[in-house]
Amino acid sequence: MSTNVLRTADGWWVVRGHRAVPVDTEAATTAELIADRAAVHEAARSDDAGTPVADLVVLSPVTTPCRVVAQMVNYRSHARDSGFTGDIPPAFFRKASGSVSGPAQAVVRPSHVKFLDYEIELGLVMGAALPVGTVVEERDLPSYVAGLVITNDVSARDVQLTKTQFYESKSYPTFTPTGPYLTLLEPEEFAHLLDLRVTLSVNGELRQDRTLADMIVRPAQALTLLARFQTLEPGDLLLTGTPGGTALKAPPKAVEKIGSLLPPAAKWKVFFKSQARNPHYLRTGDVITATISTPDGRIDLGEQRTPVTDAK
Amino acid sequence: MSTNVLRTADGWWVVRGHRAVPVDTEAATTAELIADRAAVHEAARSDDAGTPVADLVVLSPVTTPCRVVAQMVNYRSHARDSGFTGDIPPAFFRKASGSVSGPAQAVVRPSHVKFLDYEIELGLVMGAALPVGTVVEERDLPSYVAGLVITNDVSARDVQLTKTQFYESKSYPTFTPTGPYLTLLEPEEFAHLLDLRVTLSVNGELRQDRTLADMIVRPAQALTLLARFQTLEPGDLLLTGTPGGTALKAPPKAVEKIGSLLPPAAKWKVFFKSQARNPHYLRTGDVITATISTPDGRIDLGEQRTPVTDAK
Repeated sequence: MSTNVLRTADGWWVVRGHRAVPVDTEAATTAELIADRAAVHEAARSDDAGTPVADLVVLSPVTTPCRVVAQMVNYRSHARDSGFTGDIPPAFFRKASGSVSGPAQAVVRPSHVKFLDYEIELGLVMGAALPVGTVVEERDLPSYVAGLVITNDVSARDVQLTKTQFYESKSYPTFTPTGPYLTLLEPEEFAHLLDLRVTLSVNGELRQDRTLADMIVRPAQALTLLARFQTLEPGDLLLTGTPGGTALKAPPKAVEKIGSLLPPAAKWKVFFKSQARNPHYLRTGDVITATISTPDGRIDLGEQRTPVTDAK
Repeated sequence: MSTNVLRTADGWWVVRGHRAVPVDTEAATTAELIADRAAVHEAARSDDAGTPVADLVVLSPVTTPCRVVAQMVNYRSHARDSGFTGDIPPAFFRKASGSVSGPAQAVVRPSHVKFLDYEIELGLVMGAALPVGTVVEERDLPSYVAGLVITNDVSARDVQLTKTQFYESKSYPTFTPTGPYLTLLEPEEFAHLLDLRVTLSVNGELRQDRTLADMIVRPAQALTLLARFQTLEPGDLLLTGTPGGTALKAPPKAVEKIGSLLPPAAKWKVFFKSQARNPHYLRTGDVITATISTPDGRIDLGEQRTPVTDAK
C-alpha cells in the first residue's frame, strides 16, 4: 500500500484518511526523508490519532534546491495539440527549482506575461542516484524512483515561443506547484503506473484528462534516456510531460504556412493576436485543481488547488 | 590587480608567474573559496616560493554541483553565423553541471554524436546571491560577480538541432571544460571587461577571435534579465555566449527555404548530409586551445588546452 507524506513548516506527516500523523525524523530535505523510510513506516503504524489534514498549511513535499528536469511533448494527445505529425525526438529541458511552490499557493503571473498556461504532469521523485550511463529496465524502476507527486508545469507561452528555449518561460517563481502528497510506492505498485489518471480543471471546467497509457516515453525509458547525459540524486524531480488540453493549441496548417513566410517578429505578432481571443489562458481569480490517481484509489496523489494572481 | 586562483586535488593555489602558492583555507567549494578572500590575499602576498604550475594537475576552479546557466546567441558575429537577421530576443538555457570538466581534461564524444562543435565563452562566477527581481547596474557588477573563467560550451549539433531544446546536447560529461584560472577581479577592473579578447583554436588554427565589444547583452544586463525569474548563489556559473567561428553555420537562405518545405526528419537529413562535408567539426586527436585576456595582460584567464577523444 502506498504511503502519502506531506510537509508543513513543522516537518513531515503521514496521511491517514482525513488526518495526518507527524513523522519522528530529523529529515530537513526530501532526500533525507526518503532515506528515513523507517520513521515514515512507524508514523503510518502508530496509535497517534493525528491532526486533521484540513488544519495544516501544506508545503511542497519536494524541497529545493534540487534538479528539476522535464520531458518535452510526451503524450500523444499533447503532440496532436502542438501540431506534431511525424516522429517526436524525446527531449528534456530544465526548470529552475526556485519555481517550485506549494500545492495551495497562488500561481503568480509576472506583469510582462500575457499568455499564462497550465500543464499537469506526473512528477517522479528520485530515491537513489542515477549515474550517467544507467540503463533502467521497467523492473528496476522501484530501485530509482521513491515516489510520485502532482506538478503543474506552468508556462508563459509568449516567453516560451519567442525565446525557443523553454527555460525562462517555465522557471518564474510559483511556476511549479508541487504536491500535496509525496506518494511513496511499494515496489509492486509500479506495475499500476499506466492506470494513473491525470486531470486538471480551471474553475471546475475539466481541461486535461488522460491516463498514462497516452504517454510516449514511459518512466523507465525516460530515465535511461536522461542518464545518457545527466546524473540525478535522491530528491531530484522529473516531470513526465502533459496530456492534451492546454490553452495553447498549434495554429491550423494553413495559418502556419503563412506564418513561416513572415520574419519571426511578425509571425509571433500574428500568432499572439489570434491567441488574444483564446479564453483558456489563465487569469487572476482563476482556480486550478489537479488530481492524479488510479481508478481503484490504491495510488492517490491528492488534490492540488492553486489560485492565480497577478504580480503586485 | 586581478588574482588568478587554480584548484588541484590538494586544494587551492594563487598563481604568481609560472609558480603557484598554496592557499591556507578549509574551502572545499568555489563558494567557500570566494568567501575566504583573506586567505587568497595572504597567499598572494606570502614569501612562499611556491611550486611550478607546470607540475600541477589542474581541475576546474568551479566546483560542482552548481547552477550552470548560459546565454543563447549573444555575439553579433555568432548571430550572423547562425542566420539571424532581425532582433534576437535574449534567452537563457541550462547545462547540467555534471558537464563541467578540467582545463586539460579530454572532451569525450559520445558514440551517437556525429557533429561535435566548440564554443568558447567567458564564464562569470557569482560572488553573492542574486535574488529574483534584482536590477544589476554596470556599477553593481563587482557586488555580484567574483571572477571570470574560460569555458567551452561544447555542443552536439545533431542532438541540439533535432531536439530544439539545447539542454541534452550541451550537458554530456566533459562538455563544459572550465579554467584553468578563476580570475578574481578587483572592483575597478570590471571597467575593462569589454577589452577582453576571446580566442579559440583547433590544432593551432584560429577559429574564434573577438572582443567582448561584439556582445549583444552585456553582463550587468544579462544578470538583470536572468533575475526576472532565476536565483543565483555564490559559486554559480553564467556562460555569456560565444562569438562567430563555430563549425556550425546556418545554411544559405536558398537551402533554408527548400528545407522549410520538408517535414522535420527529412529536413535534418538534408542538412546533416551537407554538414558531413564540413571539416570544422571536432574529431578524435584534435586539440582545442582557448584564451581570454586583455591586450595589456592585466586580466588574463590563462590557456585552456583540451584534447578530443571518442567514448570507449
